[in-house]
Amino acid sequence: MSLETVSSNLSFGGVQGVYRHASSATGTDMTFSVYVPPHAPGAKLPVVWYLSGLTCTHANVTEKGEYRRACAELGLIFVAPDTSPRGEGVADDPEGAYDFGLGAGFYVDATQPPFAQHYRMWSYVTEELPALVAEHFPVDMGAQAITGHSMGGHGALTIGLTFPDRFRSISAFAPIVAPGQVPWGRKALPGYLGDDKAAWRRHDAVALIEDGARVKELLVDQGEADGFLAEQLKPSLLVAACADAGIDLTLTMRPGYDHSYYFISTFMEDHLRWHAERLRG
Amino acid sequence: MSLETVSSNLSFGGVQGVYRHASSATGTDMTFSVYVPPHAPGAKLPVVWYLSGLTCTHANVTEKGEYRRACAELGLIFVAPDTSPRGEGVADDPEGAYDFGLGAGFYVDATQPPFAQHYRMWSYVTEELPALVAEHFPVDMGAQAITGHSMGGHGALTIGLTFPDRFRSISAFAPIVAPGQVPWGRKALPGYLGDDKAAWRRHDAVALIEDGARVKELLVDQGEADGFLAEQLKPSLLVAACADAGIDLTLTMRPGYDHSYYFISTFMEDHLRWHAERLRG
Repeated sequence: MSLETVSSNLSFGGVQGVYRHASSATGTDMTFSVYVPPHAPGAKLPVVWYLSGLTCTHANVTEKGEYRRACAELGLIFVAPDTSPRGEGVADDPEGAYDFGLGAGFYVDATQPPFAQHYRMWSYVTEELPALVAEHFPVDMGAQAITGHSMGGHGALTIGLTFPDRFRSISAFAPIVAPGQVPWGRKALPGYLGDDKAAWRRHDAVALIEDGARVKELLVDQGEADGFLAEQLKPSLLVAACADAGIDLTLTMRPGYDHSYYFISTFMEDHLRWHAERLRG
Repeated sequence: MSLETVSSNLSFGGVQGVYRHASSATGTDMTFSVYVPPHAPGAKLPVVWYLSGLTCTHANVTEKGEYRRACAELGLIFVAPDTSPRGEGVADDPEGAYDFGLGAGFYVDATQPPFAQHYRMWSYVTEELPALVAEHFPVDMGAQAITGHSMGGHGALTIGLTFPDRFRSISAFAPIVAPGQVPWGRKALPGYLGDDKAAWRRHDAVALIEDGARVKELLVDQGEADGFLAEQLKPSLLVAACADAGIDLTLTMRPGYDHSYYFISTFMEDHLRWHAERLRG
């Protein structure tokens, strides 16, 4: 699979790149970013996948996430995919809403027209992009972690819970923990997946845990001043599911913090250190 | 002087704000950002002024500068002004070029029509904004430092050299050290200041030093892969001027680094620690 380099910049001793490729999963060009920290020649490094939230591309975390310093210190590769297919012919929300369609792929493989044609973010993020990254970057695919923000936190949790043997650690910033129970998800899941409630549950972290998915532990940070907390994020549902399932959830509520990258960047280093401990273990 | 809060976000325990006010210096609304780190009630904190480069607003460094973590640790307030007046009726480069007019005020008080009406960035950054910041934020105006990038490095050097008693420390990232000798400056200085060569020299760090301006020391970082290095930045001219003047210049050339915020953010913490040592001294 070939890869076009959109940009490449030295930063904190490593290389922050942005890359584009023709995706067979989505049938579109896809753009993503990879930070490769300084490392010994021939070394293979652990990798942290970061899934972004509604309205974002790879660029938001790449510019505002403040992860490079910690990744350089800890020797972590950091990969940030886009949040939906893009380009001519890609269907969008009929009203152009921010929470469905472009920038809002919800990390599912859509089954409903017109979205089924290109919105295959689950296959893209769990199959095609890992193979591409493994081919082109010095990653140790035996040492993977996953995290994300908001809709990307939903993606990180659902993918992590679905592939417990692939990821040594799973965390999230202000995730949508139960899309089947909140307005964002009650729009997106039927929009992409139709009436198939079983499919909804496979893309809902709380439902996955209720249905038997198990991991040892989860790390979640949540701002208390997050305007989406009460209606869309509902971390208490994850607390209850993890308690019932015996999953060790570390949920830290952060007074005063909102839903923005000012929140994410503040706690990014904590998450990366937590992942690094588990990736090196 | 009144101040409108555009946004306010908790970050690294402090408050990252963006503010707008009606500027008497420029005759326009002006927007700037201030980060106030966590601090004891009633404390007055040292302040670092950061002047941005061509095409930038306050937002570039605020989003990409990665200064908050270090400012929170070191107890520094960080202020980032805009780079020109903005709004209806503000003259721009006739061809809309990026290196003159909007986003390119060069930190001078223009004397030439039509720019003289609003392009008064020297007065804005050295008089009006300091008074406004002193009134509204917990700053110790006896402990000020100044830095900046590219055109903003030019601003930091010329303002620092002009007010050696105001700033305890002066640094720059990839500054235009001698605008009178390079294309960017040979366009901007006559464009704003006309044929008054003496005025050009007051806005040229190397000329200021040649004409007798003195500070104890300067810190400059410069990427060796910076595409503007040879034609526009020419740090060797600053090296020569400082050597002749007995100014202790620490110029560090950084192999592989370019002109972007990937470079700036990498060395931001170094600069802030260097300033903090002098501000606390």
